[in-house]
Amino acid sequence: MNFHNLSQRASKAARLFRGNHALGLTTAEHVDQLNGLDVTQAASALSTMSQPKAVAMLARPELHHAAEIITAMPVDTVTRLLNTMANDRVADLLQEMQEGERARLFSRLDRTTALAIQQLMNYPPRTAGSIMTTEFVSVPDAWTVEQTLVHIRSVERSRETVYAIYVLGADGMLSNVVTLRRLLTGEPGSSILSVAQKEGMVFIDPLASQEVVARLIRKHNMLALPVVDDHGHMLGIVTVDDVIDTMIADTTEDAQKFGGMEALGKPYMKIGFPEMIRKRAGWLAALFVGEMLTASAMQHFEGELEKAVVLTLFIPLIMSSGGNSGSQATSLIIRALALGELKLSDWWRVLIRELPTGLMLGTILGAIGFMRLTLWQKAGFYDYGEHWLLVGFTVFAALVGIVTFGSICGSMLPFILQKLRLDPASASAPFVATLVDVTGLVIYFSVALLILSGTLL
Amino acid sequence: MNFHNLSQRASKAARLFRGNHALGLTTAEHVDQLNGLDVTQAASALSTMSQPKAVAMLARPELHHAAEIITAMPVDTVTRLLNTMANDRVADLLQEMQEGERARLFSRLDRTTALAIQQLMNYPPRTAGSIMTTEFVSVPDAWTVEQTLVHIRSVERSRETVYAIYVLGADGMLSNVVTLRRLLTGEPGSSILSVAQKEGMVFIDPLASQEVVARLIRKHNMLALPVVDDHGHMLGIVTVDDVIDTMIADTTEDAQKFGGMEALGKPYMKIGFPEMIRKRAGWLAALFVGEMLTASAMQHFEGELEKAVVLTLFIPLIMSSGGNSGSQATSLIIRALALGELKLSDWWRVLIRELPTGLMLGTILGAIGFMRLTLWQKAGFYDYGEHWLLVGFTVFAALVGIVTFGSICGSMLPFILQKLRLDPASASAPFVATLVDVTGLVIYFSVALLILSGTLL
Repeated sequence: MNFHNLSQRASKAARLFRGNHALGLTTAEHVDQLNGLDVTQAASALSTMSQPKAVAMLARPELHHAAEIITAMPVDTVTRLLNTMANDRVADLLQEMQEGERARLFSRLDRTTALAIQQLMNYPPRTAGSIMTTEFVSVPDAWTVEQTLVHIRSVERSRETVYAIYVLGADGMLSNVVTLRRLLTGEPGSSILSVAQKEGMVFIDPLASQEVVARLIRKHNMLALPVVDDHGHMLGIVTVDDVIDTMIADTTEDAQKFGGMEALGKPYMKIGFPEMIRKRAGWLAALFVGEMLTASAMQHFEGELEKAVVLTLFIPLIMSSGGNSGSQATSLIIRALALGELKLSDWWRVLIRELPTGLMLGTILGAIGFMRLTLWQKAGFYDYGEHWLLVGFTVFAALVGIVTFGSICGSMLPFILQKLRLDPASASAPFVATLVDVTGLVIYFSVALLILSGTLL
Repeated sequence: MNFHNLSQRASKAARLFRGNHALGLTTAEHVDQLNGLDVTQAASALSTMSQPKAVAMLARPELHHAAEIITAMPVDTVTRLLNTMANDRVADLLQEMQEGERARLFSRLDRTTALAIQQLMNYPPRTAGSIMTTEFVSVPDAWTVEQTLVHIRSVERSRETVYAIYVLGADGMLSNVVTLRRLLTGEPGSSILSVAQKEGMVFIDPLASQEVVARLIRKHNMLALPVVDDHGHMLGIVTVDDVIDTMIADTTEDAQKFGGMEALGKPYMKIGFPEMIRKRAGWLAALFVGEMLTASAMQHFEGELEKAVVLTLFIPLIMSSGGNSGSQATSLIIRALALGELKLSDWWRVLIRELPTGLMLGTILGAIGFMRLTLWQKAGFYDYGEHWLLVGFTVFAALVGIVTFGSICGSMLPFILQKLRLDPASASAPFVATLVDVTGLVIYFSVALLILSGTLL
């Protein structure tokens, strides 16, 4: 993503343009400023702001330490703010506070707000229910276009979005969706249903994971996805900007896990040294201990090593090839699973694709390796001994075996993890490499024994 | 991302619910059906559909072979469709056709449409200009709320979004933005400016990269981002759903590059065997050739190897640790750069963070390694010879050096690549590992010579 110069261009244009029209800072820019202050400063800054302004700030997930800031503000101000803020955001903020703090603020909220938030906080994290907001616009299907417009004007300020209007049947169940743009084009006097969407409705179960929510919103280009219970009653909506935030967070987590570490959960520069060590040392040590098996494997083949030191020369080369092919396969499968291109049940389809792929890739590398060895021998760069040809065959055969094994391991591991209800993204490149290294050594030496016994071994 | 069972729940609810309200299929579902047919079948299917329906289908990037399908349809039908479709989509479709086909269709488009599309096709790919649409709503700042509403009703069908209305000054320059929701709440008679956004305006240069666009839309929770030239004249808008599509595509590319291969550009199951081999073999072979240096390095230290076979036992363990720490660091930095958390100029900040981190992590692994060796020796699992203690020190020192080196390499490589205008995501785990492996061996044997010369060596 090489956009350094372009982004400069853009911001240049922005400055130039702002120059022409002096129009204050955006909320996002204000948030950046607040992030520059410490908690108490930020708290007093927010307390002095106009209520709508303060609400806009606190609404942004980009605002650091929002929970602490709120705790540091005069309780009356906070209560007023929380009562006007979007319920889903308030729920998130309360969840970040200690029990006592949370209870204290909770008791001072409006009853209706408190109930809605209570309900949101009951959903497990990372589900549709936990990221939805209960502040949507719904109208009975008996209403006219005009009635609906009047209603929207009155509630506009208190709703996260009014661009999708949800029409409820007499039974109170979600029956239709009307987009604001279509509503505008409707005849004031005619029924709301006259401008309802003709296509089938899309909605989600409150316990569906946020990944599924993101995929639906993406697939149907929606601005908001309604969340309904099993009886078809509306519980809330998830808006597209909430989804983008969760998408980014998930992708970052996956990328870091794939790099072989715990997800940081904070920007690189924001995280403290001890935490950084903790998040990285854990996996690194685990992998190290796993990799120790290579030492044991080598000890097991010590005899062969002493007889044929020439074999040791190719150990790093052969092992790394297995790790690399494994890392390719695992990155492909993790991503395909995350995007829903592959289902758990597709594992065998992948297997029968990776087997020939691995064999082919292994043969290619093996050929290169064999040629290199032959070249060095013939050109006299290095003498691999009288049995150099056999050594060459050993290297070739080992590479075919190890690269194939790497591709299989790398592609199957994510499926296994998902089957075990673990995150497939934990099948990190280093994890796969370690797995393949140990087996790779065993394969290498077994092949060597097979080909070289009687001559070198 | 363990959502398998949840997504099942969701779709169960969906079926159940759709049962209650029989409301046909969604566009996305129709698209899935079309993807099941071959090009000619799909073409005839589309030709028989109502125009709005057909337009909705062709508008979806998820529709496979859209360009070929269009080419296979009766030219009059196609012309009608292209004239009504969103310009940015038409531009994309035309770009996928062969020269002749493109020219033929292009000549039959309305003059205005043709001009707009021509302009879009002139922007370099992956820039704001290339993904924007020219179909937005703009009104003069002299208009009233009522006038604007009337205008929107008349153009609603022909615009990609009407939720953001762009107000142009007398000079035709973008001066304000009005959201449809605020517009509704305005006094019909009063000026459009009475409901304009109070905060500063956000917009972008047409040559800014799509990553920058995505970041701005995310940062400011926008539904659409205006694209303006250096004089502040509006060229088009990028809508949030276009951005989501590009975000997903970029992330997949990065993930695959990070796995050490070329980006597939297609779903895993859609790509053919030869293409799969090509995309994977290239990098794999390159890494293999790079890794050959390890063999050369080992050859260089052959003497030491023969004298102290015990040293070879720890080669895989020590090398892999360098690769793992490198992979952690590079995954952190690539992601931080992609999210704009880090700028190119931050490289030294990262360096002074990674140096102590690497030393710390190296010390931890070194300690574990040393303990393991001591344990095996004392417990009599294996005899590392009379100088086992010195061997232990060698392993410890080598690990500290190599893990530190790995963290530095892994964290700096993405910066170097970006500086060279290459994609930082190419600093893949395997790439870094290979880089570290060779140097790792040299570090290991140098440390060994330092500590063991006179005893083992």
